[in-house]
Amino acid sequence: MSKFGLYTKFTTHEGHRDSLVEMLLEASNGMESVEGCDLYVVNIPDNEPDSVWVTEIWSDPSAHQASLFLEEAKVLIQRARPLITGVKQIKLRPVGGKGF
Amino acid sequence: MSKFGLYTKFTTHEGHRDSLVEMLLEASNGMESVEGCDLYVVNIPDNEPDSVWVTEIWSDPSAHQASLFLEEAKVLIQRARPLITGVKQIKLRPVGGKGF
Repeated sequence: MSKFGLYTKFTTHEGHRDSLVEMLLEASNGMESVEGCDLYVVNIPDNEPDSVWVTEIWSDPSAHQASLFLEEAKVLIQRARPLITGVKQIKLRPVGGKGF
Repeated sequence: MSKFGLYTKFTTHEGHRDSLVEMLLEASNGMESVEGCDLYVVNIPDNEPDSVWVTEIWSDPSAHQASLFLEEAKVLIQRARPLITGVKQIKLRPVGGKGF
């Protein structure tokens, strides 16, 4: 089974980016114990004040899919939803590299 | 100094994606010994046959900047240029997460 990668861009209501960043960092703490999650990094883009990008690498697509049904993920989605105006995802197949 | 992240999308002439992937994987081998390069992953996107995304995390922006002047990087750019029709970059400040 090949690895699974994801770039997710969240756009927030004006001025709510930092609150979402905090929630995503909490989520990444929860990921420490989630098997199959190799990388979950929260990023602030250079030129967009109300956006956050999350970089994920999973051992396989099904590990990522299963993570969406964790209780913690569902609670996070509920809490974050009011802050968010848009979500864009780029699905990837990581094929190799450093730190991979 | 904060970390530096980069998503780079390369678009190739039709049918030349796999050649570029090979070159980028070679580049990532070279990165093993480059200080300041924490992550360099080559990814194939889900729905775009002639594109490659590279995910990078560097210890700081200047480490990334310095890497562009390495002889190996210059040679790679020369070799890859004929395959490439477009480059798009998203510059990021990684703020935390798992595997960070």
